[in-house]
Amino acid sequence: MNPNTKLWGGRFTQATDKAAERFSASIHYDSRLYKHDIEGSIAHAKMLAVSGIITADEARRIESGLNTILSQIESGEFVFRPELEDIHMNIESKLTELIGPAGAKLHTARSRNDQVVNDVRMYLRDEVNDITDLIIRLQKSFLEKAKEYKSAVMPGFTHLQHAQPVLVAHHLLAYVCMLDRDRERFFDSLKRINVMALGSCALAGTPLPINRDCTKELLKFDTVSINSIDAVSDRDFIVEFLADCAILGAHLSRLAEELVLWTSPEFRFVILPDAYCTGSSIMPQKKNPDMAELSRGKTGRLYGNLMSILTTLKGLPLSYNRDLQEDKEPLFDSIDTIKGILTVCDGMVSAMRFNVERLEDMAGADFILATEIADYLVLKNVPFRSAHEISGKIVGYCVKNKKDFCDLDMNQWKSFSDKFEDDIKSRLTVMNSIKNKISKGSTSYNEVENQIDYWFLKINKLVSDITENIQ
Amino acid sequence: MNPNTKLWGGRFTQATDKAAERFSASIHYDSRLYKHDIEGSIAHAKMLAVSGIITADEARRIESGLNTILSQIESGEFVFRPELEDIHMNIESKLTELIGPAGAKLHTARSRNDQVVNDVRMYLRDEVNDITDLIIRLQKSFLEKAKEYKSAVMPGFTHLQHAQPVLVAHHLLAYVCMLDRDRERFFDSLKRINVMALGSCALAGTPLPINRDCTKELLKFDTVSINSIDAVSDRDFIVEFLADCAILGAHLSRLAEELVLWTSPEFRFVILPDAYCTGSSIMPQKKNPDMAELSRGKTGRLYGNLMSILTTLKGLPLSYNRDLQEDKEPLFDSIDTIKGILTVCDGMVSAMRFNVERLEDMAGADFILATEIADYLVLKNVPFRSAHEISGKIVGYCVKNKKDFCDLDMNQWKSFSDKFEDDIKSRLTVMNSIKNKISKGSTSYNEVENQIDYWFLKINKLVSDITENIQ
Amino acid sequence: MNPNTKLWGGRFTQATDKAAERFSASIHYDSRLYKHDIEGSIAHAKMLAVSGIITADEARRIESGLNTILSQIESGEFVFRPELEDIHMNIESKLTELIGPAGAKLHTARSRNDQVVNDVRMYLRDEVNDITDLIIRLQKSFLEKAKEYKSAVMPGFTHLQHAQPVLVAHHLLAYVCMLDRDRERFFDSLKRINVMALGSCALAGTPLPINRDCTKELLKFDTVSINSIDAVSDRDFIVEFLADCAILGAHLSRLAEELVLWTSPEFRFVILPDAYCTGSSIMPQKKNPDMAELSRGKTGRLYGNLMSILTTLKGLPLSYNRDLQEDKEPLFDSIDTIKGILTVCDGMVSAMRFNVERLEDMAGADFILATEIADYLVLKNVPFRSAHEISGKIVGYCVKNKKDFCDLDMNQWKSFSDKFEDDIKSRLTVMNSIKNKISKGSTSYNEVENQIDYWFLKINKLVSDITENIQ
Amino acid sequence: MNPNTKLWGGRFTQATDKAAERFSASIHYDSRLYKHDIEGSIAHAKMLAVSGIITADEARRIESGLNTILSQIESGEFVFRPELEDIHMNIESKLTELIGPAGAKLHTARSRNDQVVNDVRMYLRDEVNDITDLIIRLQKSFLEKAKEYKSAVMPGFTHLQHAQPVLVAHHLLAYVCMLDRDRERFFDSLKRINVMALGSCALAGTPLPINRDCTKELLKFDTVSINSIDAVSDRDFIVEFLADCAILGAHLSRLAEELVLWTSPEFRFVILPDAYCTGSSIMPQKKNPDMAELSRGKTGRLYGNLMSILTTLKGLPLSYNRDLQEDKEPLFDSIDTIKGILTVCDGMVSAMRFNVERLEDMAGADFILATEIADYLVLKNVPFRSAHEISGKIVGYCVKNKKDFCDLDMNQWKSFSDKFEDDIKSRLTVMNSIKNKISKGSTSYNEVENQIDYWFLKINKLVSDITENIQ
Repeated sequence: MNPNTKLWGGRFTQATDKAAERFSASIHYDSRLYKHDIEGSIAHAKMLAVSGIITADEARRIESGLNTILSQIESGEFVFRPELEDIHMNIESKLTELIGPAGAKLHTARSRNDQVVNDVRMYLRDEVNDITDLIIRLQKSFLEKAKEYKSAVMPGFTHLQHAQPVLVAHHLLAYVCMLDRDRERFFDSLKRINVMALGSCALAGTPLPINRDCTKELLKFDTVSINSIDAVSDRDFIVEFLADCAILGAHLSRLAEELVLWTSPEFRFVILPDAYCTGSSIMPQKKNPDMAELSRGKTGRLYGNLMSILTTLKGLPLSYNRDLQEDKEPLFDSIDTIKGILTVCDGMVSAMRFNVERLEDMAGADFILATEIADYLVLKNVPFRSAHEISGKIVGYCVKNKKDFCDLDMNQWKSFSDKFEDDIKSRLTVMNSIKNKISKGSTSYNEVENQIDYWFLKINKLVSDITENIQ
Repeated sequence: MNPNTKLWGGRFTQATDKAAERFSASIHYDSRLYKHDIEGSIAHAKMLAVSGIITADEARRIESGLNTILSQIESGEFVFRPELEDIHMNIESKLTELIGPAGAKLHTARSRNDQVVNDVRMYLRDEVNDITDLIIRLQKSFLEKAKEYKSAVMPGFTHLQHAQPVLVAHHLLAYVCMLDRDRERFFDSLKRINVMALGSCALAGTPLPINRDCTKELLKFDTVSINSIDAVSDRDFIVEFLADCAILGAHLSRLAEELVLWTSPEFRFVILPDAYCTGSSIMPQKKNPDMAELSRGKTGRLYGNLMSILTTLKGLPLSYNRDLQEDKEPLFDSIDTIKGILTVCDGMVSAMRFNVERLEDMAGADFILATEIADYLVLKNVPFRSAHEISGKIVGYCVKNKKDFCDLDMNQWKSFSDKFEDDIKSRLTVMNSIKNKISKGSTSYNEVENQIDYWFLKINKLVSDITENIQ
Repeated sequence: MNPNTKLWGGRFTQATDKAAERFSASIHYDSRLYKHDIEGSIAHAKMLAVSGIITADEARRIESGLNTILSQIESGEFVFRPELEDIHMNIESKLTELIGPAGAKLHTARSRNDQVVNDVRMYLRDEVNDITDLIIRLQKSFLEKAKEYKSAVMPGFTHLQHAQPVLVAHHLLAYVCMLDRDRERFFDSLKRINVMALGSCALAGTPLPINRDCTKELLKFDTVSINSIDAVSDRDFIVEFLADCAILGAHLSRLAEELVLWTSPEFRFVILPDAYCTGSSIMPQKKNPDMAELSRGKTGRLYGNLMSILTTLKGLPLSYNRDLQEDKEPLFDSIDTIKGILTVCDGMVSAMRFNVERLEDMAGADFILATEIADYLVLKNVPFRSAHEISGKIVGYCVKNKKDFCDLDMNQWKSFSDKFEDDIKSRLTVMNSIKNKISKGSTSYNEVENQIDYWFLKINKLVSDITENIQ
Repeated sequence: MNPNTKLWGGRFTQATDKAAERFSASIHYDSRLYKHDIEGSIAHAKMLAVSGIITADEARRIESGLNTILSQIESGEFVFRPELEDIHMNIESKLTELIGPAGAKLHTARSRNDQVVNDVRMYLRDEVNDITDLIIRLQKSFLEKAKEYKSAVMPGFTHLQHAQPVLVAHHLLAYVCMLDRDRERFFDSLKRINVMALGSCALAGTPLPINRDCTKELLKFDTVSINSIDAVSDRDFIVEFLADCAILGAHLSRLAEELVLWTSPEFRFVILPDAYCTGSSIMPQKKNPDMAELSRGKTGRLYGNLMSILTTLKGLPLSYNRDLQEDKEPLFDSIDTIKGILTVCDGMVSAMRFNVERLEDMAGADFILATEIADYLVLKNVPFRSAHEISGKIVGYCVKNKKDFCDLDMNQWKSFSDKFEDDIKSRLTVMNSIKNKISKGSTSYNEVENQIDYWFLKINKLVSDITENIQ
């Protein structure tokens, strides 16, 4: 290709090396930004007209041309040309082809440096809203499931060992809390995403009488960037977003791990419907929790994408450097990945059924009620450490003699401490263990009920806020 | 050691393997939490007394014992015992030694699971405040430096090539913007850090009549955790903090890179005082910008620490797992590292001197004013793309004929476009290029002045808010 | 899709959820393995025939059917069906369509678990060979460039400060060394890549009388995997490869950084041809070293891909888990990326021209010869530390008095040490500094000549070995 | 401190800033290199004497002084001085204090740049040997355990679902394979670690007549570095080592995960002795697999350390930069971590007991033998895909009618395929399933026996090689 075909080719005397052209082209992934690029360009043209830099008629022709391109792209008839490097040049080039000289005025008071970062900001704020919706939907599915299994018990785990009995609903609500912090983090990030960069131009601003506030209003940005050098050289809003995705991914990898464990033949806590499982090419009996495994496995790329952009930014001098083009693929990949994970997790959580009998059986096994004994003694004024030690000895005695707590008679109880009375026995049931909890945020029926109410209220409010915003 | 020496040893019949004991001990790093652990325990004891679980006298003895331990630790006379595993057990064990049975009551309605995460939350909110102060201090140093060099010019860079002339102050203020987003991110993170976890106990809460709001007030937390399972199993506030440190570190690595470049013999833009440089063990003439290099190099550990905790969390089932102990060393290391980097960067920024003559020389070199030519033509109604192409050809002509713009006579100008008039020459100075910029956030004197005013106002307000909070 | 359309659908009663199907499909990236999958299947069929499990005729029909599919894929007429999940099922399904019942026998004594890992191993050993060739080619370009600039000098840098003068060729040869270790690492990795996994089946082997050594010979593997559980569950050969790419990427990021620095207006050490630069959409004079910047920026994804697969593997129980499907995209991306970087770096290194005069000017500036003074004194038996101190004082004196070494008269020299004689002056030239070096591996003309000879011999031998292997 | 107290302070007029001094000091961690630094210095001094650069007497005094320092460090009486920055300067400074002017000659023809990298190389080759020994020891423990449980069966897992029955020994031997590749990788890395860098000096070599081969022989290096610029600027041998640790860590995280799963109340596959478990501060019954959890959790820092050094290297221009000081802490941490994990894993593997009855029960459950049915049909010439489908339908039928395979009568079998004969029933036992496997590397008794023999032979040979090397 003749260097002068490039929109920047004026001073060049040699065509770009073919391998280099392939190496540097971004059109195969940044075409994803077409809608926001066009929306941004239309607003830019309107502002140029308002500011008297182009005529109203030129602005109208630009808008009409861009809308034609939009239709062509959406209908699939637009031909992307790799030698035009990126989405911006593909669109601008086609525009001039369509509308003539007015098209050549679109890039006035603009550089790709401010244009691309502005496109990404517009694109990302939309994606953040989508992701937030998916989070809320998943929270709601957990909440419904918690309500459905309100009275079901299960062994609570620490160290993957039975710790104390808890309500299934309580366990599920832990995920609602985790997701809520994720939601909050994405919400906070919008402050740093929703900032208009256009008008920063290459890095120094422009001598043309543009009106950045006008463009901001047209594109519904919250604020305008303060410093043009910073505006074209920084990508921290992308790193923040990718970190938020990584944390959310970590949370969902824990859910996925639990689904894998819970559907194993050893656990048998949960049944996943066939729709979320796949079979084996060789073993006819297999029903594998593939969606959970993939949700867990895809954590890798969420972390990897974060590391990728962090590495790219490390040690870059200001302002724009071409290295920054590498911000897009990890960003797009994390967006697609996190949306995919949220969607299948939502499906699995909605569809999973708990094996309530199995859970109840396991909730009382393995001396899981030993802490009740210690708490019983504390209520009778035995210092906690002594109470703990006495309970530990009872467990040790039972293990050694292959007995369970209920096998002990009153004499045996007394031999460990004379504080034990008959009522110790009635305390040692899963039901009572749960019922007796009274601390805020604990696993008692009351407290879990409170949590469910709290979340329904909060999430319904969030949903109605979103609906309002859309209208 | 007899297993029963362990505070949890009741049911155990075999001592911990020596290598395993060393492998799992955390006292060599978590001793750093001593102050917050003691503060938390005192509040917990007070709450237990208020709730009638222990007597007021027991609470007083616990408080007094803990204060003794605090003094012992701060004076260096406290002996940490690795076989007691961690800071919590070291303190509790010593407390019982000091005050007898009342000490054995401290751990009532508490588990190490909620205790440790609560300690870290208290510790971290203090550190976040310290880091925020250091960020503001560095912003202020940039601001003072920008004011000092208000009229100095330099070549603005994109791709490390000269792009357009900018004010030195404008470049410095880009860092103030970056740091301000960092500051905001840390501020936002406090919402998720400053949450009281005590009372979640092992994972299920407690049947004892504790009052979590009371503890919250005593320890000045903003909120109380909602779900006890989540409270002991989640560490996302740590990941978020480490991500914030990584982003801040990325920003400062860019500053560090620029300092290294600017002090090189090829750039000669900046002079760093001897106090921030070191020499060579072999080359007597060397004066190396080591502090900048280390600030850049330490980005590695900030990223690595983030990756470390993310990896640890991946795929962990709920609730507490011992893996979570691995949250502390990366956290502590990133805290120390980022404070160190902020401190030396502040020192360097305050002390650096710009070589104003050199900067001015370079600010006008290498056809850096070519965009002025294009903008000139645009103002004469030439479509931007044509204006860009014409300017590119003029550059090409000058390169080929080893001329500079000022060497062209009017005929030559006209041969590229008849829109050129005599006034093109006066436009082509660094001074005019900067002065003519008018867009918001641009590099013109006015706009930069506005930025400086904006930041002084904002930062002074932040400083006075902090001072008030402390009082 | 009816669940029974799936080749594993026998026991399923519900179709896969649509979102889940999209989420888990891999055909859009694993189609890249088609050639190796077909090659592996043909060999498997031949082995089944040799072992009497299928007939020779069935094997022939399978081979012919697979070759038809190969042509269809390569001509672009093959239609990949996402609902068939992956490349293996797409091919097998089409095969049965083409040749009937014999096709349904191909998957005998095979599982996708061993099939996919075997495909990747075949694919990767080819890619490793391609990458090795590109490394050798780049080494050769460095070597040619070193020969071309055999007598050119430049300032040697430590801390990006001038340290001692070196030969340009010496600096270039450092990269040949780095690349040679990369080449060695890839070579070593082949031991762990080139292992035949087929016959491990799902995880336990098979009761059918297969002959794994026969398949190994047909597919030219070095060895056969030892343990079927390990064979289907491990991916360490992929991690190792990605780590090797990351290290190579780190090396090339250093080269890229130097190219960016060297082409900056401040350095002016190197001129890159237009073919490896691009212009600006706004600034007509710009000629940016984009290929170097992108080579540096793409280090991010090389590191990110490594972290991705490491994260995915963390904490996975044996044997195969669906998480492992996530091994492919980072692998493919790193392969494409590293080949792209190697190619453009080769182009840039071959095409770059050094600005010899500028390099020579800078090679003698800034007291770079101070170490010569110290070495001079050492040869006169002054202990090195004192020699270093004396030289440092001379530098300090010169800086303070704005003098250069050549401005000092003999009295001044003597005032620092009476060991100085007239010959000190002749020593203090760039040429002599380089010539006087005599240690092995140093920058003297002789030593650099030796290095060039050594590498030409070694690399020509490598190239001829490769050529032989291909024949 | 007066700048001139620094050994490089000659030209400096201002003391190092206190915060900067703390920030840049490395003595608190690089003191770990003391032994190798001293060993290297003694060899360097001997070489200087052999080469006539210092006298034999000076070399003797240096050696004797350094040996005194060695004793002082090992006895704990040596006082490290942070203001002397690092271990090299601490030792050299003390040496001159001890032996006077001869000490000041030690640093002749040497720079810290080549000294430090050489120290690390010596240190690391020792550590690699230690780690290799620990790997072999762990392989041996797996092997002994496999032998001990030679006839025990267990369900083989894919997707954490039961796939096919396997021998416990077969599963354990998978780890022996994984570890063997780790061992090989460390072995391969020695080629790139065991290279002598001394004599490269700052970056350019030296005019003094040193003999690098002599130093190499004295320090038992395999080769001498080829290019002095490369020698002081590269750290890829450290990255490679950290990558090898990360891969080994990934392997051991999988073991750790399995230990956690297997000791859970739901699995009950394995009993770990008390010595490798710890209790709970609140729940008296708890016996937690903490060492396994920590082994899994510490994967985080192994990955993080790798990321750390990769980040530090990214985009660094040649040659030495102070950033490289950041190579040591991640290196040291990964060494300590991997040795700790290997040690406790060895302890756990040696001490764990399998619950053979439980494993046998689970090995036959859940239609795990369905693949046997398909294989049975294949042997009767049913194409595999049809055989798979028929078996799948039988499983579906059994699930729906709550039957097991053994509940089906011959009519029912025939209704699925008339190929079924009476012998189908005898095939469907765990024992026969395992016994019938015949492929190489499969789970049959014979094949597993072969594997055990193979590994005993190989590992005993490795051990005897090591013993020989030591003698």
